[in-house]
Amino acid sequence: MAASPITIRDAEDARIAPFRAIREKDLVGRRGLFIAEGTVVLRVLAEAHAKDRFVADRILVLENRLAGIADVLSAFPEDVPVYVCEAAVMNAIAGFDMHRGVLALGRVAESPAASQLIAGLGETALVAVAIGLSNHDNAGALFRNATAFAADAVLLDATSCDPLYRKALRVSVGSVLKMPWSRGGSAEELLTALGAAGFQVVTLSPSGGTALNALPPAKRTALVLGTEGEGLPAPILEAFRPVRIPQSPGLDSLNVATAAGIALYQLALSTGRIG
Amino acid sequence: MAASPITIRDAEDARIAPFRAIREKDLVGRRGLFIAEGTVVLRVLAEAHAKDRFVADRILVLENRLAGIADVLSAFPEDVPVYVCEAAVMNAIAGFDMHRGVLALGRVAESPAASQLIAGLGETALVAVAIGLSNHDNAGALFRNATAFAADAVLLDATSCDPLYRKALRVSVGSVLKMPWSRGGSAEELLTALGAAGFQVVTLSPSGGTALNALPPAKRTALVLGTEGEGLPAPILEAFRPVRIPQSPGLDSLNVATAAGIALYQLALSTGRIG
Repeated sequence: MAASPITIRDAEDARIAPFRAIREKDLVGRRGLFIAEGTVVLRVLAEAHAKDRFVADRILVLENRLAGIADVLSAFPEDVPVYVCEAAVMNAIAGFDMHRGVLALGRVAESPAASQLIAGLGETALVAVAIGLSNHDNAGALFRNATAFAADAVLLDATSCDPLYRKALRVSVGSVLKMPWSRGGSAEELLTALGAAGFQVVTLSPSGGTALNALPPAKRTALVLGTEGEGLPAPILEAFRPVRIPQSPGLDSLNVATAAGIALYQLALSTGRIG
Repeated sequence: MAASPITIRDAEDARIAPFRAIREKDLVGRRGLFIAEGTVVLRVLAEAHAKDRFVADRILVLENRLAGIADVLSAFPEDVPVYVCEAAVMNAIAGFDMHRGVLALGRVAESPAASQLIAGLGETALVAVAIGLSNHDNAGALFRNATAFAADAVLLDATSCDPLYRKALRVSVGSVLKMPWSRGGSAEELLTALGAAGFQVVTLSPSGGTALNALPPAKRTALVLGTEGEGLPAPILEAFRPVRIPQSPGLDSLNVATAAGIALYQLALSTGRIG
């Protein structure tokens, strides 16, 4: 049962302060808070809220969108305030034209460490690991692809960007709020922990000796992705023999999120997770 | 041998007029002209220029980038003017902060029809077809993926967006200037022509009966992609039995460019084009 909507007439109203100047605030980070944008992400937030993993703090909706998303709003408990306003007020609040007309402020309730996630994985597991992934679109796309191909977790090192950033969350179609994930630790720490847990660590490089589709399947597999453009650091590629996604020679390699999608597809297929 | 650089001191200089207010001009289209942005795309334009397919009209470079891209500039003939300016002038010209500092105005020299491209294909062929693809990032990514997986051509219907739009070109890492492609015609016209040319027409749908990796390979294959969000129109899915990319059930399907990348990877692998 959702809360009764409260009308906001003034962009300076304190109750909607967290939604003010969204873009500028995104850039400095929000320490445990995040902005969910659009109906798709709001729907996933409602599911996460029910599981106490990510919690909705308040919701702001365009007046003319209210009826259309009544079912989504009804999935939130009554103690989550729902504010409504007209387009001019919302644009003044957000600092730009908020066509989507649906915003929520969320809070991180649980933030597991990589070691906890690894300890909780089953006998067969597929994990995606990001090392220095810096682009929010790519982070969002990685989560979307990991979810599509039934990965069990995404582990981001401390130098990777925050997948709860508004745009990453949107590109992930909300899957950042569904998929188990952690952010922290160094590449060495993460890969050592995965190795100790019996994971086959798969790194990608266009010059890898083995083709991805020829890799013998393992019960536990970790796919490791590097920075946009430069890829993984040489010491990691030396320590874990890289495989290649077969492709046309002599070209710019694939975008990192697309490479992740293809590799997760192939690994999930090879290990019988999808079919 | 490149032209000697000519310094521009005034953003209103008529010689750099095509670069003024780039974003606004992009939105209205340029009828046979396009803007190439960044070193990667400029390098591909130089190759295309040598083959008379896309022709460079003029180049504008930030003064401090000139030495770094000397090798790229030297690939253009002397009759392509190279203008240089300081950052403040370039930003005033472009209408925003042009960090990349490398712009070229290009012109379409050859614009083949789909029928010409199809007629020129070999006995074995892989083609990507876009129906109503409206997002420039996705169009660019489709070309990048088609190039990576050795497709022979990309056919866009008349309702798809222009892949020569600045951002599509950039996301494609210049492959729009390399890959044979056409834009025009209706979905019906394109698919009928491909069917008549003996192509196995592959459409994608999450509810497709056959898994993509179980599809018997054909000598000539056309992968058909639909609009973002809605996918292909029902009549097309009914006429050409869709296949599915195996994935986790009950989720938002993959982004169209990622789906294209995975499908092209699988089709190229199944038909032995890559390995």
